[in-house]
Amino acid sequence: MARVKVAINGYGTIGKRVADAIKLQPDMELVGVAKTSPNYEAFTAIKKGYKLFVPKENTSKFEKAGLQISGNIEDMINEADIIIDTTPNGVGASYKPLYQKFEKKAIFQGGEKADVAEVSFSALCNYDEALNKNYIRVVSCNTTGILRTLCTINNKVSKIEKVRVTIVRRASDPKEVKKGPINSIVPDPASVPSHHAKDVLTVIKGIDIVSMAVVAPTTLMHLHLMNITLKNNVKREDVLTALKDTERIVLINSSRTGIGSTAEIVEVSRDLGRYRYDIPEVAIFEDSIYTQNNELFLMYGVHQESIVVPENIDAIRAAMNISSKDESIKITNETLGLMKGYLI
Amino acid sequence: MARVKVAINGYGTIGKRVADAIKLQPDMELVGVAKTSPNYEAFTAIKKGYKLFVPKENTSKFEKAGLQISGNIEDMINEADIIIDTTPNGVGASYKPLYQKFEKKAIFQGGEKADVAEVSFSALCNYDEALNKNYIRVVSCNTTGILRTLCTINNKVSKIEKVRVTIVRRASDPKEVKKGPINSIVPDPASVPSHHAKDVLTVIKGIDIVSMAVVAPTTLMHLHLMNITLKNNVKREDVLTALKDTERIVLINSSRTGIGSTAEIVEVSRDLGRYRYDIPEVAIFEDSIYTQNNELFLMYGVHQESIVVPENIDAIRAAMNISSKDESIKITNETLGLMKGYLI
Repeated sequence: MARVKVAINGYGTIGKRVADAIKLQPDMELVGVAKTSPNYEAFTAIKKGYKLFVPKENTSKFEKAGLQISGNIEDMINEADIIIDTTPNGVGASYKPLYQKFEKKAIFQGGEKADVAEVSFSALCNYDEALNKNYIRVVSCNTTGILRTLCTINNKVSKIEKVRVTIVRRASDPKEVKKGPINSIVPDPASVPSHHAKDVLTVIKGIDIVSMAVVAPTTLMHLHLMNITLKNNVKREDVLTALKDTERIVLINSSRTGIGSTAEIVEVSRDLGRYRYDIPEVAIFEDSIYTQNNELFLMYGVHQESIVVPENIDAIRAAMNISSKDESIKITNETLGLMKGYLI
Repeated sequence: MARVKVAINGYGTIGKRVADAIKLQPDMELVGVAKTSPNYEAFTAIKKGYKLFVPKENTSKFEKAGLQISGNIEDMINEADIIIDTTPNGVGASYKPLYQKFEKKAIFQGGEKADVAEVSFSALCNYDEALNKNYIRVVSCNTTGILRTLCTINNKVSKIEKVRVTIVRRASDPKEVKKGPINSIVPDPASVPSHHAKDVLTVIKGIDIVSMAVVAPTTLMHLHLMNITLKNNVKREDVLTALKDTERIVLINSSRTGIGSTAEIVEVSRDLGRYRYDIPEVAIFEDSIYTQNNELFLMYGVHQESIVVPENIDAIRAAMNISSKDESIKITNETLGLMKGYLI
């Protein structure tokens, strides 16, 4: 079977990771990556041997920087079977007419409004709904973290009645030097619910969920504090068993290993030699799992830079209808080295 | 020739990196690592297959955590030809009598006083003085950064008359969650000169150097702002040529690549897939290199977690007298992937 030709439009935090992930897939090939400005990420793309495509009007800027370009963005789209749109929030929608003009499928990110696509996507929750679709939207990093957790509990422990979740967001990505806050905790927004609850509902329909979010001055990970009310009473052991056995979820035992913070999760990832220290798994603090009658409480970290990468890969297979849910998740997990069980 | 048996006493930020580096050396073998508390670093040591040695009185704590131990610290020292002491600042000196009792050579770190060893060490500056020594002290990360830069200028551009350097230190390592400042700039110390000038003088004798230091709220790298007065007038191009051609120094061109901060240096290191994103090279901002008559100005980043790792490896070869300076530096650079020239 011919490999799926994938193009990446937007080579920033998510785009560069998805490009690297595509290179590891046995059933995909990378056409190239498109970028608008000739910064260090363009240099690393060239160094990795990725073909670089740029907007026509920016060609001279890239040539001036000594970067070899392989064509313009239309050339890249024309060569591809499917486009991963990892352009900045809200920009993806403005590219959609171009993808349509070339009759190409596209995967958008959570920074776009839900109506940019036919379906919002989280692999563990609704892979099958995305089969054969032309336009799929991978939900945001925070929503991906929430959905992986909720679908696992809902499918393996007990049906969910109600979700109340507090999101403590990281202020900026590590590479960003002009974004804050750096000394404040900022309700984001001050109104309740935050948009995350609404975003969850694009994938799991009709549950009672309210989210509140603040931004904290850190770059490493988001942290979620969750309270779930279930239809039935629940035992902590049953929750633990379900989470331990779920792909793309790792457990952090703080009392045994001393890992008690997002910083230390990142340190372990560095020590394990993970590429870019990425942690695409939901990282659940085991000691935080607490049950009381039909209520479940837990805390987990969400690595904003990488958690949506496996979902983008699965979304490609769903859109192209080349693998079942289980097959796709298995290939993605194996090629990207995704774990389940204890991180260490 | 038998490989040198190296033991690591203290498996924290520096110790774990030196252990990994030892494993890559063709002429060394790792006896094991010693650790006092059973935290996540002990778990990763076991996962990597490193033998774990612990103080006798802590044995039960490790066994309780399920960590297999290979003996006590004395057992490890007994098996080794040389000990790398990477215990916390000031603790190394208290272990020296034990190394002496077993008649073993030892490499100490810059957190110890200079008189713990026969010689303070920076590979590019004074490798030959360390040949055959029993006790060598690798100077601190900041001093290593200063010395690499000064010895390069002194040997390749012009003799140095005077050095005035401002050190903006990182507040804590990334893994540290209880150290600050997180919202202040702290003169460190408020008195002048800071200890760094004195530390430089343990390696380059008799130059006129004054250092001032502050701590800034960041975890990624230190940054030095340097003003060197030379014996002769100097051209910017000559400085650039010398720095470009020196091992363990990389140049960062901000205007061409957009890398304008320590955060972006780290981002590039992550993108290049460097283990733990380590940057053991001095990272000089090319655009900051400025000359005026016989004065030279420049800024560079110092990655506090990794810059002393290659120096520790070279110090082993010097102590054992198994390689010349150039041979040792070559093997270390090749095995650790150290660069010269432009980072990207």
